[in-house]
Amino acid sequence: MTPDTLTAVSALLPWIEIAATVAFAVSGVMEGARKRLDAIGVGAVACLAAFGGGTLRDLLIDQRPFFWARHPEYVWLVLALVVAAMLFLRLRHLPVTERAMRVPDALGLGLFAATGVSQALATGLSPLLAVLIGVITGVFGGVLRDIACNEIPYTFRDHRPYALLAFVGGWAYVAMDALGAHPALALLLTAGLIAGSRLLAVWLDWRLPAWRVDG
Amino acid sequence: MTPDTLTAVSALLPWIEIAATVAFAVSGVMEGARKRLDAIGVGAVACLAAFGGGTLRDLLIDQRPFFWARHPEYVWLVLALVVAAMLFLRLRHLPVTERAMRVPDALGLGLFAATGVSQALATGLSPLLAVLIGVITGVFGGVLRDIACNEIPYTFRDHRPYALLAFVGGWAYVAMDALGAHPALALLLTAGLIAGSRLLAVWLDWRLPAWRVDG
Amino acid sequence: MTPDTLTAVSALLPWIEIAATVAFAVSGVMEGARKRLDAIGVGAVACLAAFGGGTLRDLLIDQRPFFWARHPEYVWLVLALVVAAMLFLRLRHLPVTERAMRVPDALGLGLFAATGVSQALATGLSPLLAVLIGVITGVFGGVLRDIACNEIPYTFRDHRPYALLAFVGGWAYVAMDALGAHPALALLLTAGLIAGSRLLAVWLDWRLPAWRVDG
Repeated sequence: MTPDTLTAVSALLPWIEIAATVAFAVSGVMEGARKRLDAIGVGAVACLAAFGGGTLRDLLIDQRPFFWARHPEYVWLVLALVVAAMLFLRLRHLPVTERAMRVPDALGLGLFAATGVSQALATGLSPLLAVLIGVITGVFGGVLRDIACNEIPYTFRDHRPYALLAFVGGWAYVAMDALGAHPALALLLTAGLIAGSRLLAVWLDWRLPAWRVDG
Repeated sequence: MTPDTLTAVSALLPWIEIAATVAFAVSGVMEGARKRLDAIGVGAVACLAAFGGGTLRDLLIDQRPFFWARHPEYVWLVLALVVAAMLFLRLRHLPVTERAMRVPDALGLGLFAATGVSQALATGLSPLLAVLIGVITGVFGGVLRDIACNEIPYTFRDHRPYALLAFVGGWAYVAMDALGAHPALALLLTAGLIAGSRLLAVWLDWRLPAWRVDG
Repeated sequence: MTPDTLTAVSALLPWIEIAATVAFAVSGVMEGARKRLDAIGVGAVACLAAFGGGTLRDLLIDQRPFFWARHPEYVWLVLALVVAAMLFLRLRHLPVTERAMRVPDALGLGLFAATGVSQALATGLSPLLAVLIGVITGVFGGVLRDIACNEIPYTFRDHRPYALLAFVGGWAYVAMDALGAHPALALLLTAGLIAGSRLLAVWLDWRLPAWRVDG
């Protein structure tokens, strides 16, 4: 790969994080609206979904300042998004469906999980812990969103692979890292792999083996 | 303003924090009692309500020791309050109503939000982040209280301004700080502004614009 | 006590922590299975139950690296346990009952509370705070487990002593520590005292005085 390609890939990374943040914020807006929260509640759930995973990642790998303090523009973006969504949802009467929530979720999952593995590895954690922190980074925003809305987290009861794909994709990052791949490229490929496999899983209706308790 | 007045205002500050802690602990006791938790559950919910916001603030602005470790007397106070409430609630058959919960909530909101903004600004965070950390400090104890009681947080679905007033009041602190006001005075005015506007909002039944999803 | 006995007691300590971690992970597996979560959800709830209390302890006493980073083998153990439980629960059709959950809970409570008090005291916290951090260490894994499963935490509404026994036992550790007992022995005795009294409380159906609100 030429240096030019690497530069181009590196330039993509901030956009990846912005897209992931927006994707999760949108999932929070939709879940909050579906639960008929008030405007503040919707904004709070959007912030939990957008910043929860990255904040927990920063806590668990003891990374300071938190990523929203490194990038205060993300906070403005999410607040603007909530206001825009309020206007948009009013004007267009968007039906709020679980189906619509899956696409932003898949994008955010892949993008956050990839950055989580990458940053955890960089602090010297073992591959297993780094991969799990990637999963937590990708999943925990949604988990907080659902807990705040008084639901069992969707990803715990979906019976479709979600966290599992982040887990598998995380090992792909570890492998690329061990093989000496450029971090930006490994991030992009991992994020694409996770998001793509998640969308495929939803489309083809893949199922986790059932957890049979009584029979 | 004379130095004497400033000294008097500064002397008020520890009492502000104690009053805020008690106010939130009481809201936790009442919510726990309303849910028919056992004595330990009521105590735990009271502690979550009283210490949750300040602990999250200290985590987010990376401030150590935590405020309950700086002020262990608050912990004794809350434990004593829980025991006293058990005796008091038994003797007087206090009806536990949502109405009664609003007054301590308003006081705690204003007092905690003001200290949150002030401490976050002092760590060098941007005004927007400082104001949001003020809101989180004021609101998160109640959010944890409600989540532990398996409710969607009251402040997310109240359709009355609550976090919003802490947000607006937080900007008042930022403005006073920028204008060079004495910190103790700015704290007191901000807390009073938020608590007062909250009580007014409840009394006059102000409503947030509805979040219309379907129409 | 002879040095040989002390060595033997010290050698027990890593096994105590492993047993406590397994005990809480099992309680998470059972609660997740009872709620019909998918395999990932069950694994996540098991991890919350097993690592939630210790992680919050490490956060609150500002101890790094986190204990799961000091002991990555625990994470492998819990993941192996979840896989084993899936196979085992399928083969044997184990009825998942609240009764079965109480034994691992009692063990984990005693073992984690004792280590929590010990480590909090070592950081110089006051006895009351150390005891409360012991209670949080013992109880919070289960609290997170129940919140993730959309239940009011069992320990808040059980009306049987649970956190209370960890609280009382924590003071026993403080007393032994003040009397100059060997830390390993104090840990073991405290853990045994808490776990034993909890099992006794369940067996003899001890009740907390009721929280009477209206009468």
